[in-house]
Amino acid sequence: MEPFSANRSVREIKVVQRVLKVNERMAEQNRRRFAEKGVFAINVMSSPGSGKTTTLQKTLERIMPEIRAAVIVGDVSTTHDADRLAVTGAPVVQVNTDAFGGDCHLAAHVIEKAADDIDLDDIDLLIIENVGNLVCPAEFDIGEDARVVVLSVTEGEDKPVKYPAMFRRCDAALLNKIDLLPHLDYNKALAIGYIQQVHPGMPVFEISARTGEGMEAWIGWLREKIGSKLKAQSQ
Amino acid sequence: MEPFSANRSVREIKVVQRVLKVNERMAEQNRRRFAEKGVFAINVMSSPGSGKTTTLQKTLERIMPEIRAAVIVGDVSTTHDADRLAVTGAPVVQVNTDAFGGDCHLAAHVIEKAADDIDLDDIDLLIIENVGNLVCPAEFDIGEDARVVVLSVTEGEDKPVKYPAMFRRCDAALLNKIDLLPHLDYNKALAIGYIQQVHPGMPVFEISARTGEGMEAWIGWLREKIGSKLKAQSQ
Repeated sequence: MEPFSANRSVREIKVVQRVLKVNERMAEQNRRRFAEKGVFAINVMSSPGSGKTTTLQKTLERIMPEIRAAVIVGDVSTTHDADRLAVTGAPVVQVNTDAFGGDCHLAAHVIEKAADDIDLDDIDLLIIENVGNLVCPAEFDIGEDARVVVLSVTEGEDKPVKYPAMFRRCDAALLNKIDLLPHLDYNKALAIGYIQQVHPGMPVFEISARTGEGMEAWIGWLREKIGSKLKAQSQ
Repeated sequence: MEPFSANRSVREIKVVQRVLKVNERMAEQNRRRFAEKGVFAINVMSSPGSGKTTTLQKTLERIMPEIRAAVIVGDVSTTHDADRLAVTGAPVVQVNTDAFGGDCHLAAHVIEKAADDIDLDDIDLLIIENVGNLVCPAEFDIGEDARVVVLSVTEGEDKPVKYPAMFRRCDAALLNKIDLLPHLDYNKALAIGYIQQVHPGMPVFEISARTGEGMEAWIGWLREKIGSKLKAQSQ
């Protein structure tokens, strides 16, 4: 089987590289479009069940209407997350990847189409909640200004070293569900150490989306990022 | 962009279909090989941090040496899980997919190679711990006899409907970390209802790998599956 496997791999890798190259070009188009409209775009990624949606819901409740936000939500199937986020009053567009083969990530051309359904002149912040997956979304630039990874204290300490590409590419990490720490055998220092090992200096915000603990620090960081972009553009 | 996107999609889908076809053929080879050796192979899948490794460790402790088991562990990076499983005394082979592009799943040809490092004459059960991901591993038959999905009560109730392909393809679900239920806003009946909606009749075992609760029922199911295969073969 050896030569066959080897051939297959090379062919497969070439196709993947071509797809990534096309994606990069379209991501740049998205980025220019968001810049022209004065929109800060953030790509939020995590494994399934880390609490992304609750975190974003609680974030929107705290920043709106001062910051005008919209959300694009990616899921393989269902509109559950979009329904939950729509409660905040933010415009929400749900992308279901099972419409195009059950993709395990959002790609730049998907964001381009989804953004057509949002009035970009009317918002400051576009939150993109990616498909729950710690592997594939890390490879696809979608034109965002910042990337955030959410991990929860129920997932074990070693996710950063097991999924290093994700943690290397992100600009901040949210360590969620800290209200559960008393009930877990979880070594928080070890987890944060792993994050710093993979991505030295990356800010880590310890939060509980459920209780609200730690949310202000994370939102402060987000506000500052949005502010810096808008300031840079107005100069 | 429309025609360009459309072309790209069709080309991409063709390549994916070709890869899946090749994978299917190699999975059948694995399946024949395991059958010849009297080995029952089980493919264990979940999102990152659901407790797969702890569950398997506790399972091995309970079934060995009566059932002779070996494990193939898939991760993008690190040998953490293999190290933890090796403590049980079972032969363990770690596959790191970052050696071939950071693949988000195990494929049949990877299992074929990994199985070369295991003495198949010497075991009854081959446990394959897949890469933590609820999307991609569902698409790749690796030659297993049964598929199990682990989900944890910290992940939210709606994973079965958000990742339906995974739950449809599996033969049993392990609902893990039930020791944390008193500390969560988790609607267990809703979660099990979603599983039954996607895959009516699939057995669901409520377990806590940490405390041992519920492990006997799951292991009883596993024993029966192994027994049925060996019995069918000896007739």
